[in-house]
Amino acid sequence: MEAGKADIGLIGLAVMGQNLVLNMADHGFRVAVYNRTVEKVDEFVRGPGRHGNVVPTHSLEEFAAALSRPRKVMLMVKAGAPVDVTIEALLPHLEAGDIVIDGGNSLYTDTERRVKALAEHGIHFVGMGVSGGEEGARHGPALMPGGDPAAWPEIRSVFEAIAAKVEGEPCCKWMGEGGAGHYVKMVHNGIEYGDMQLIAEAYQLLREGVGLSPEDLHGVFDRWNRGVLESYLIEITRDILAVRDEDGILLLDKILDAAGQKGTGKWTAINALELGVPLTLIGEAVFARFLSAMKDERVRASAVLRGPGTRFDGNAEAAVDAAHDALYCAKIVSYAQGFMLLRAADAEYGWHLRYGDIALTWRGGCIIRSRFLNNIAEAYQRNPDLENLLLDDFFRDAIHEGQRGWRETVALGVRLGLPAPAFASALAFFDGYRSERLPANLIQAQRDYFGAHTYERVDRPRGEFFHTDWIALAQQGANG
Amino acid sequence: MEAGKADIGLIGLAVMGQNLVLNMADHGFRVAVYNRTVEKVDEFVRGPGRHGNVVPTHSLEEFAAALSRPRKVMLMVKAGAPVDVTIEALLPHLEAGDIVIDGGNSLYTDTERRVKALAEHGIHFVGMGVSGGEEGARHGPALMPGGDPAAWPEIRSVFEAIAAKVEGEPCCKWMGEGGAGHYVKMVHNGIEYGDMQLIAEAYQLLREGVGLSPEDLHGVFDRWNRGVLESYLIEITRDILAVRDEDGILLLDKILDAAGQKGTGKWTAINALELGVPLTLIGEAVFARFLSAMKDERVRASAVLRGPGTRFDGNAEAAVDAAHDALYCAKIVSYAQGFMLLRAADAEYGWHLRYGDIALTWRGGCIIRSRFLNNIAEAYQRNPDLENLLLDDFFRDAIHEGQRGWRETVALGVRLGLPAPAFASALAFFDGYRSERLPANLIQAQRDYFGAHTYERVDRPRGEFFHTDWIALAQQGANG
Repeated sequence: MEAGKADIGLIGLAVMGQNLVLNMADHGFRVAVYNRTVEKVDEFVRGPGRHGNVVPTHSLEEFAAALSRPRKVMLMVKAGAPVDVTIEALLPHLEAGDIVIDGGNSLYTDTERRVKALAEHGIHFVGMGVSGGEEGARHGPALMPGGDPAAWPEIRSVFEAIAAKVEGEPCCKWMGEGGAGHYVKMVHNGIEYGDMQLIAEAYQLLREGVGLSPEDLHGVFDRWNRGVLESYLIEITRDILAVRDEDGILLLDKILDAAGQKGTGKWTAINALELGVPLTLIGEAVFARFLSAMKDERVRASAVLRGPGTRFDGNAEAAVDAAHDALYCAKIVSYAQGFMLLRAADAEYGWHLRYGDIALTWRGGCIIRSRFLNNIAEAYQRNPDLENLLLDDFFRDAIHEGQRGWRETVALGVRLGLPAPAFASALAFFDGYRSERLPANLIQAQRDYFGAHTYERVDRPRGEFFHTDWIALAQQGANG
Repeated sequence: MEAGKADIGLIGLAVMGQNLVLNMADHGFRVAVYNRTVEKVDEFVRGPGRHGNVVPTHSLEEFAAALSRPRKVMLMVKAGAPVDVTIEALLPHLEAGDIVIDGGNSLYTDTERRVKALAEHGIHFVGMGVSGGEEGARHGPALMPGGDPAAWPEIRSVFEAIAAKVEGEPCCKWMGEGGAGHYVKMVHNGIEYGDMQLIAEAYQLLREGVGLSPEDLHGVFDRWNRGVLESYLIEITRDILAVRDEDGILLLDKILDAAGQKGTGKWTAINALELGVPLTLIGEAVFARFLSAMKDERVRASAVLRGPGTRFDGNAEAAVDAAHDALYCAKIVSYAQGFMLLRAADAEYGWHLRYGDIALTWRGGCIIRSRFLNNIAEAYQRNPDLENLLLDDFFRDAIHEGQRGWRETVALGVRLGLPAPAFASALAFFDGYRSERLPANLIQAQRDYFGAHTYERVDRPRGEFFHTDWIALAQQGANG
């Protein structure tokens, strides 16, 4: 490290960028900062960035000159074209061996492209997923770096220092090559969609179906947060159930039921379709947000379409326990599907993902952090080549134990007319996944009947294809 | 029409192309034919194409010279690059006002692009969905033409003549501009995936769950094919259930349960995600094919994972009736979702789709042809601006009548551990769609809690966004 020079530089002083700078500075790193609108640099160092380790700069030239070599430049600019524009402007000020880290929510295919393009200039490019929001950026995010592996030894100490820690272990592991880091972050976000949808379904079933009060539900989520479901999202749901508006009414009840999204859940589902992975739960979670957003049409439909007209007449406590098990089992399926997608992407892109490290990274700092991720990390520790999480002893036992309540919960929603698409979809997946035989033979027969698409046979080797003149044989059968 | 010249030309003499030529020739049209491998032309006219109305040509020059003007050229070449290559080669032989029709399974975005590119040469380009397989091409396919509207009056008589007829009406209507024709064909194929998955689920539930024999099931599908479910796919399922292998065992039982696909179902689901449409049933149907294809992993999983260990103890006849109603209701949801997607695409691309005409086109010739499509056509006749099929009186009544059996069928699968992802997903959609309030308010609260994404309120106008410091208020609540 050159004397007096900054250890790292950061471009882009929006909230996330500022908080990462302060986090680095607090950990003893000297950080040069730059922003395209340069007034923001001065505002920052006069305000929250007034810190001995923050070095303001007012041009890219000055910025590059302030950095010790090899230069480490982190970009916290808007994903998409702004990243390319910034790299373009920065490039003349860099030299071979320097490192550029994109900490935005970039699409992994963009990151793949950038790793290759910058390698041609001798620059090591890293795409880093950053999760945990503003709070995480300031005090310990989950970090998912991937890209040019030559960069990792140079930047590792900074990012391990600022990352969240769980049991002393930083939530920051090298994810793999190319777009691996941003890909893992995308899947993280997809799983986040799934977790949130599952919680929403449990909440609605217990509140509208079983008839629990917000106070009851606050207690339920508080209890759940001290067991196997312990997680950030269960914790904040508990908190939300305690917040009242000025008039004393639950604030939650004043919030419009039209969910927004930034698109990463959608990307995850689209990618699963492209790679041929049955990512049903996240798919349903994304679709559920779409349906929620059709608020006006739903209001009109609610005046036209009737439900089953049934009421809950069971035991409330048993229903709460069943919902707990449903949440746990469906969550296991969701993560199993997420890791199926990661495996398929790894096979497609050759990133050499380490699944245990991904679970370790997600344990703290990020939105899906939970006790559960420890179990996943342990499963991959026991068997790094685990074919599927559902085949691990721990998760197998958990599902065997919970499936009764899970089935009761799905059946309850069906009976009461309350939608639980993620619970139901996860259960159908589980029952399909553990089926030695599915009725896809009928689909193959149909395809061969109408389109001569041929089929394979259970009594012949794979790769041998057969075609039948179904019409002729059916007539024989009918006559014979 | 110029004396002695051909009315239309067709390039690409694979089976579909040959059959379309013969269909046109039988209807009195003179058809010039050409194939890149010219030997195929001679083979064809010596063989099945020995027909007074078929005009063989051996170069694109000769082909173009044989056509009356404006020239009408139909391409039946492989979708993708071959279409562009053929157009490129053909272009020097065409002149302004000529018409090119692509009858392959092209991606609609390619068709959008080609319509624009050829318009610059004064050539009218049409992307035409052709459904019905070889049989349909020969004796009456469903045709979905769209693109440059100037082409339609010129080509209409040929295609209306060769199309399937239902009640004297040709299953061939102008779909709209740009890529509309190929888009409608893509959605048709997506719906086909959904229909097939629903039938497969009903079949499995009744066979494995309720314990019906193939003979029983043959009778069930035969009966169903004489009621509201009457359709080509129910009919061929009935046929398949009568076909036995040489050893007397049901041939279906010898077929490997790993479903193939050509990708159009996947395109449909991806497009729904891109357009923000909750196309859950087709999504689940595509995912179910993916899961079926994981045959070896499923076999391994079946040895590890246990189901609920329950058996059917109800009334078989009642279960059959319930499955009938489930199939009908879920099918209504599937088509409602398909038409939601068409509406969203129309809003996005401005094709001016006419939904009633789409239903009329699908009534005959194609794989999803059914009595049911008459009801859809009638619904759009009653109200061309119908917001959603589920809001039409006929379908509303049908679902109200069938929902009890539908719910029982989903609950049966859940209880027995037999997967019915499409039945369940459709039901969750129905219950969500008719919900004035969904628990998406909780999702919005969570997003505001961890990411300051803000929310709208039910008691304030849309477009006003609020943010809450949840942590602070939750602590107050806990303390207060």
